[in-house]
Amino acid sequence: MSAAPLSPTPRSTPNRTKHRTVTDRAALYEVLDAGLVCHLGIVLDSSPVVLPTTYGREGDTLYLHGSTGARSLRAAAKGADVCVAVTHVDGIVYARSLMHHSINYRSAVIHGTATPITERSAKLHALRVITDHLAPGSWGYARDATNKELAAVSVLALPLAEASVKIRATYPGDDPEDVEANAVWAGVLPLEVAFGAPIPSPDMTSQLPVPPHVTERRHLENPRAYAAAVPAG
Amino acid sequence: MSAAPLSPTPRSTPNRTKHRTVTDRAALYEVLDAGLVCHLGIVLDSSPVVLPTTYGREGDTLYLHGSTGARSLRAAAKGADVCVAVTHVDGIVYARSLMHHSINYRSAVIHGTATPITERSAKLHALRVITDHLAPGSWGYARDATNKELAAVSVLALPLAEASVKIRATYPGDDPEDVEANAVWAGVLPLEVAFGAPIPSPDMTSQLPVPPHVTERRHLENPRAYAAAVPAG
Repeated sequence: MSAAPLSPTPRSTPNRTKHRTVTDRAALYEVLDAGLVCHLGIVLDSSPVVLPTTYGREGDTLYLHGSTGARSLRAAAKGADVCVAVTHVDGIVYARSLMHHSINYRSAVIHGTATPITERSAKLHALRVITDHLAPGSWGYARDATNKELAAVSVLALPLAEASVKIRATYPGDDPEDVEANAVWAGVLPLEVAFGAPIPSPDMTSQLPVPPHVTERRHLENPRAYAAAVPAG
Repeated sequence: MSAAPLSPTPRSTPNRTKHRTVTDRAALYEVLDAGLVCHLGIVLDSSPVVLPTTYGREGDTLYLHGSTGARSLRAAAKGADVCVAVTHVDGIVYARSLMHHSINYRSAVIHGTATPITERSAKLHALRVITDHLAPGSWGYARDATNKELAAVSVLALPLAEASVKIRATYPGDDPEDVEANAVWAGVLPLEVAFGAPIPSPDMTSQLPVPPHVTERRHLENPRAYAAAVPAG
């Protein structure tokens, strides 16, 4: 894994709560790899448009895909600036004071311009990266894409060059007077995400066993980030 | 609750998968009320910026808040167009074919211009709506905001006038040949979100009981939407 530091620019450098900004690439990878959807922002007709979409990461490239008919994807494929955000909500922070209430979260924001991937083998590779992210184990198990299916999907590559990561993973930051007064409970209510039991599609003509890549899947949330910052006791 | 239909415009009308677009206001309220953070999109220096932030809804108004120092909030307060998205990932859709893999999700996207709330009582009311959303029960329990704290926060109101809701809550939509072949398991792996056990802040000078509004909090995810579309069996 590359250990190159991120290269924040003015627009990717939050001008608030700088202490929450993490500038190492490993943290960026962790936040992206733990997510399932990103929010893709783009400017259409001078107005912002934000759309949720799936993605995959390989090295310092984020792959996005969508229908060739999607206006935002078409604009992105033509080189319009994009902004991609991936956010995890890890807990609700209950402070002694209302205005110190907050959330614990991990968030990555990437700015850049995307490049369409059109060459067949490169496109298949990018789709594999996205599939491995969304449904690891499905590539090689489910039916391969046909040429017609491939043609209907647009795949873009966005470099992870201009990015920022913000993490809040700690207790309330109350004022000393409020801590001293000890009149109000303070703490964190963690939010936990997990996969439930697989639900077979009712249209299977005979019941097939659920494959291990589905039954054994664990959610990618990284508990370490939270556990480290919120030690027991 | 208002039952007025939404008023989609070209930019809020997805031009793909129209069958997934829901145009009733109750669905919009459900998606927004089940969320914890939204993604706020705005145009800064001609480029899109997407930032996660907390919010609250009352009737047909979405309240957003943030530091008065946040550039995106300042631009939004000056009347720049904004786009706000709230997305829930409800499950991974494993199809017989790779290209029909998908996610089950509920997503709301709102377009409009926001108005800053500056009058003291209106601002307190908006902050109460946001607090009641983020941490119901904390208003009236935790210490009230001081004037200095109030001055440091910017609160915006965004009308829920131009909005769209998209929901996918069903099984894979495979091609008939793939269903017929019955060679590949198909189904949904649901994603479940829940609150864990509250973690008291270690700086409490003596242990206070965890208040009921924290211990009894249940996650707002609406299981009905999923259960209705994915019946048992």
